[in-house]
Amino acid sequence: IALGADVAVDETQLNAFLDSLKYDDKGLVCAIAQDVDTGAILMQGFASRDAVAYTLRNRKATFWSRSRSELWCKGETSGNFIGVESVHVDCDRDSLIYLGVPTGPTCHTGAHTCYYKRVDGRDGAAAKVDGGRHAAEEALTTLYELEATIEARRVEAVADDVKPSWTRRLLDNPELLCKKIREEAGELCQTWEENEGKEAATNEMADVLYHSMVMLNKQGVPMSDVLAVLRRRFGTSGVDEKAARPPKKLIDPSK
Amino acid sequence: IALGADVAVDETQLNAFLDSLKYDDKGLVCAIAQDVDTGAILMQGFASRDAVAYTLRNRKATFWSRSRSELWCKGETSGNFIGVESVHVDCDRDSLIYLGVPTGPTCHTGAHTCYYKRVDGRDGAAAKVDGGRHAAEEALTTLYELEATIEARRVEAVADDVKPSWTRRLLDNPELLCKKIREEAGELCQTWEENEGKEAATNEMADVLYHSMVMLNKQGVPMSDVLAVLRRRFGTSGVDEKAARPPKKLIDPSK
Ligand SMILES: [Zn+2]
Ligand SMILES: [Zn+2]
Ligand SMILES: [Zn+2]
Ligand SMILES: [Zn+2]
Ligand SMILES: [Zn+2]
Ligand SMILES: [Zn+2]
Ligand SMILES: [Zn+2]
Ligand SMILES: [Zn+2]
Ligand SMILES: [Zn+2]
Repeated sequence: IALGADVAVDETQLNAFLDSLKYDDKGLVCAIAQDVDTGAILMQGFASRDAVAYTLRNRKATFWSRSRSELWCKGETSGNFIGVESVHVDCDRDSLIYLGVPTGPTCHTGAHTCYYKRVDGRDGAAAKVDGGRHAAEEALTTLYELEATIEARRVEAVADDVKPSWTRRLLDNPELLCKKIREEAGELCQTWEENEGKEAATNEMADVLYHSMVMLNKQGVPMSDVLAVLRRRFGTSGVDEKAARPPKKLIDPSK
Repeated sequence: IALGADVAVDETQLNAFLDSLKYDDKGLVCAIAQDVDTGAILMQGFASRDAVAYTLRNRKATFWSRSRSELWCKGETSGNFIGVESVHVDCDRDSLIYLGVPTGPTCHTGAHTCYYKRVDGRDGAAAKVDGGRHAAEEALTTLYELEATIEARRVEAVADDVKPSWTRRLLDNPELLCKKIREEAGELCQTWEENEGKEAATNEMADVLYHSMVMLNKQGVPMSDVLAVLRRRFGTSGVDEKAARPPKKLIDPSK
């Protein structure tokens, strides 16, 4: 579904779904916007019945602004919308995930996500955002923590008499990096060829992923771009692959 | 920090942090538990001042149960705790992420996460959970959607007169799969060796990742296990790598 596209909504099904939610005493459910590619939690707000309906009709993350007491389609002033690919409801129906693709930084501070401060960190007034990459205190999951670690190795000063980190050595010696990538891919294959077992396969895949990500850093490619490519290939009908799921019906809370 | 370990907390700093949160009229902030390895949103609840303090002291995700009006350390009855690695606060300080590692299924239904129903899906009473893998309607981000797609290819029936998907052909012919993995690793290296540019590097990395993930499926290894390995290698001091971040101080909201 194209972002912002008009989606034909079955009004009966939509109303049945909206009726099924467990609103609080203010008529709201919790709504969490999550980046479909990276898994980053972008922001959290609350949604009224109308906000949920607006989100499903327009495929843009929409909330109820408690401060302004009005419907708020995130991005309508900033232009930084969150396109919604799918909506998920939790077990007791009082909380939603808007899973989608942001068109720009989500936070009004310019940060990638609103969660750019760590409790145990230096709680500065301004978010540290460097060129679209992650802020230092963002809630990074393992893959993006690794990406940030590799970047930190690239930029860190290494004194002449100190042995540089393995990552830095690979970045400074791309021939070695290429040799390692080919070697690790071979070792992953060998885990099957030599029947080495799951633990070996897990470790070799970690090697492949790490060394490939050093190569991405070397070429200035963020991991999120790779995931966006995979989403386009597999999320819609790829060259050889069909979508994993049956065709999307917008609302069917019939059972 | 080991899960559940007693952490020395600076009481002054802890109180300053707790004071800085913007509680609602019931004295609560929103708290979202997220899997640090996969990025999956596990559950969402609300946290009182005491619940946040308990979480930071004990490194276990803790909420205020609005139905029972009591502090609720998730897992204290089920045994399925969520170990908390770090806590992040949003820009207006009324919402937290508990980023951590679940010790078992988070949902009381036995599902991996509480968000196992898609609005546009079949809203059945029971979550579809197959052996610890993902439920069909879970809020899967791109990497786990791809993992689920590969698994769907593995189990789908293919009629004799229908050309199988590329994924299925790779799964049925591991020699071909190994050949492809080695080839794609080489093509990723070539993007640097031949100076082919960022777009080529992005596409070749997507090829490497996809083919490697088919190999993981072939050997029954979930991607989350690979990320857990990477977290253990890079999150704490690895053989050659130091932690990317300065040593963790639990609370320092001094600025
Ligand atoms: Zn709920
Ligand atoms: Zn914000
Ligand atoms: Zn970020
Ligand atoms: Zn290896
Ligand atoms: Zn907030
Ligand atoms: Zn649940
Ligand atoms: Zn799952
Ligand atoms: Zn190729
Ligand atoms: Zn290729």
